[in-house]
Amino acid sequence: MTSKDIQALVLEAAQKAKAEAKAKGNVPQNTEKVEWPVNCTIGPGLEGAIACESAVGYIDGTRGELIYRGYNVFELCAYSNFEEVSFLLLHGYLPAATELHAYQKKLARFRSVPETIKQLAAAKLEGLSEMAALRLGVLFLQQSFAQEKTKQNCPSNTTGTVSDKNYDYCYRLIAALPTIVAAIARLREGKEPIEPDPDLSHAANFLYMLKGRRPTPREEKVLDVALILHADHGMNASTFAAMVVASTLSDLYFAVGAGIAALNGPLHGGANEDAIKMLQEIDQPEKVKAWLEEKLAKREKVPGFGHRVYKTIDPRARILGPLAKQLSEENPYHWQLYQVAETLEQEMAVRLGNTKKIYPNVDFYSGLVYLALGLKPQLFTPIFAVSRVAGWTARTMEYLENNRIFRPRAIYTGHCNERYLPLEARQK
Amino acid sequence: MTSKDIQALVLEAAQKAKAEAKAKGNVPQNTEKVEWPVNCTIGPGLEGAIACESAVGYIDGTRGELIYRGYNVFELCAYSNFEEVSFLLLHGYLPAATELHAYQKKLARFRSVPETIKQLAAAKLEGLSEMAALRLGVLFLQQSFAQEKTKQNCPSNTTGTVSDKNYDYCYRLIAALPTIVAAIARLREGKEPIEPDPDLSHAANFLYMLKGRRPTPREEKVLDVALILHADHGMNASTFAAMVVASTLSDLYFAVGAGIAALNGPLHGGANEDAIKMLQEIDQPEKVKAWLEEKLAKREKVPGFGHRVYKTIDPRARILGPLAKQLSEENPYHWQLYQVAETLEQEMAVRLGNTKKIYPNVDFYSGLVYLALGLKPQLFTPIFAVSRVAGWTARTMEYLENNRIFRPRAIYTGHCNERYLPLEARQK
Repeated sequence: MTSKDIQALVLEAAQKAKAEAKAKGNVPQNTEKVEWPVNCTIGPGLEGAIACESAVGYIDGTRGELIYRGYNVFELCAYSNFEEVSFLLLHGYLPAATELHAYQKKLARFRSVPETIKQLAAAKLEGLSEMAALRLGVLFLQQSFAQEKTKQNCPSNTTGTVSDKNYDYCYRLIAALPTIVAAIARLREGKEPIEPDPDLSHAANFLYMLKGRRPTPREEKVLDVALILHADHGMNASTFAAMVVASTLSDLYFAVGAGIAALNGPLHGGANEDAIKMLQEIDQPEKVKAWLEEKLAKREKVPGFGHRVYKTIDPRARILGPLAKQLSEENPYHWQLYQVAETLEQEMAVRLGNTKKIYPNVDFYSGLVYLALGLKPQLFTPIFAVSRVAGWTARTMEYLENNRIFRPRAIYTGHCNERYLPLEARQK
Repeated sequence: MTSKDIQALVLEAAQKAKAEAKAKGNVPQNTEKVEWPVNCTIGPGLEGAIACESAVGYIDGTRGELIYRGYNVFELCAYSNFEEVSFLLLHGYLPAATELHAYQKKLARFRSVPETIKQLAAAKLEGLSEMAALRLGVLFLQQSFAQEKTKQNCPSNTTGTVSDKNYDYCYRLIAALPTIVAAIARLREGKEPIEPDPDLSHAANFLYMLKGRRPTPREEKVLDVALILHADHGMNASTFAAMVVASTLSDLYFAVGAGIAALNGPLHGGANEDAIKMLQEIDQPEKVKAWLEEKLAKREKVPGFGHRVYKTIDPRARILGPLAKQLSEENPYHWQLYQVAETLEQEMAVRLGNTKKIYPNVDFYSGLVYLALGLKPQLFTPIFAVSRVAGWTARTMEYLENNRIFRPRAIYTGHCNERYLPLEARQK
């Protein structure tokens, strides 16, 4: 499979998605102008609540479409790359050649964060999960950036309060996260972190720093597609956490830190690691049925399935599924795991697809793709962060244009007139 | 002023609040049972949106009342202490004697985090704000706790996924935050951090670690009142950020970390530092009028004023205002700043009190109280965190009982059918 084949695979997935939506007679949903305040129906977890307007991206949950700034994600996966897509998310349009080159140059420069890597190496990572180590790296990044500003005689009390509209803060985070994740991966194995190579693309350089060799064009394209697919996804919990933090006019590093904190959870980004562990645990396609039977009987969640917004197949799974299939063919163990996944998808469709509309989501096949790239499961969620930081920063910057601090209400279900009793008078 | 005087002051504030609410004819608002989904009217920043049910606490914004688990905060300030109040918030009732002693013993034990303090000292704090240093401390705490669990042969992959309902995770954070904040304060001044004293109360020990001497009973009571007043406050942005993170079933340390991240913002906890800086900048009561004139003409926010929920005086300001007054009398400079504050409050009431219902909030007078305790402005927001961690953990644990991941929606205002143009074809 070449890079061209991957492009063809993406376009085929796009065609399939379109044809299925057409067959169901779904028309595109209209976008609306919000007139605040709005009336809406809210469920637990703020389901259905409207938190803001946004032009960054759109999920059509009925048609199974994911749009970044007007562009269908299928088209971006086929023709674009992560640099273009992150620029698009942040600035609202695809960069012209000179802009793209200037942006690439900045990213390449901001990739190199030797002070942060030195601090990470000195801190020792025992006891910290990969995601906690990543959060630590972002703190060190914040620190070294503040020190750099002090040296330049800039006011150092801020390292990215977004009210100053300085996109360099975003670029720094987008550029440095791969370096931090790669360093963590190397340090875990007792190896020296690898300096970034400014001549490589974002995806290629990340693989280079992880593996210590330049990736093939195919590997580069595979990771690029995965990074594009994970870059933004509406008001998911990590993006929302970042926005809540930023809405207090806190620091952009703190906002991204909260994004990492939320992404870590197994009901969010953590699911991609859990999904691959599940496939490894099931081990063989013949065992899927019994395993699923037991899982459903216990009413446990199956990692990698279901999504609040999609009532049909997740468009990201439409790409990652076939991609995982083609990549897994080359390695017997990967092929075995892929077959477990495929069987599980079929079983789940029979059991829950029609009634509960539970389909594979982005986390179901992404792990098989990363595994085929030779990456370890504990890196899957950090890789998600490396991509999603584009959405975190884009939506945060956008929200701050018309900022209002997030403060919903709770319905109080307790009492109101308790009288204080001195300790002696209390009874257990 | 003795501890007894402080109690009297609190009770007087309570009387005054009650009388004023009565005079206005406000009756207590009823609590309701939510039937999901609910219809409600939402404004920007999720104003009016109902995020969940809660029995932890209640703000009656019209009457100006703050309730923790059924108890009016005035009563708790007069008779209780932070240990009791944090137990109350977490568990829903005031502890009986044996429970309280067991809880105090645990807190005293969990205060001592020498490994974390060693790491903080080694990390060097240059370039990090106090709040960023606190976030770093919580990461080190997470790390040393995970290592401790590994040594005990406990599964170490979790340091507080709250689904296991282990309140010790909460106690550890409540107990250790003061130790971390005090260590940061000492390290900044080039001094050795002070080991906690297990024989002192939560408030007294915190002051002891900050100042290196045991506090007077009055100092202890003042800080205790301040800690009680800041312990919980509905679905404020930091509590909400912690809950959003926890709703992914991420780690409790990550949730509290997001709380710190949000509290840092000047539209939230950061306002208490900004408020004192403002008073210092205005400097003299005679200058208030002109200063305010200019500020309002520029349509800038005045730190320490206004609150989304209160349409009357913040009950916390009712205590902190008179407390600041009495404490400031003893020092000419503090008295000068207090007079600036009082004049500003009066001017603001004339300008915005009747029309816009903008009154002093908790952040307006708290700084003067801390200043009178000999504490530095950069510690004011971290002290807020030392208290609010009780609310963060209490509401997080409660939410996880019926967890649903937070995922609101955005209204998409962008396009939908952009076609990808190759780089050469794009025009700037």
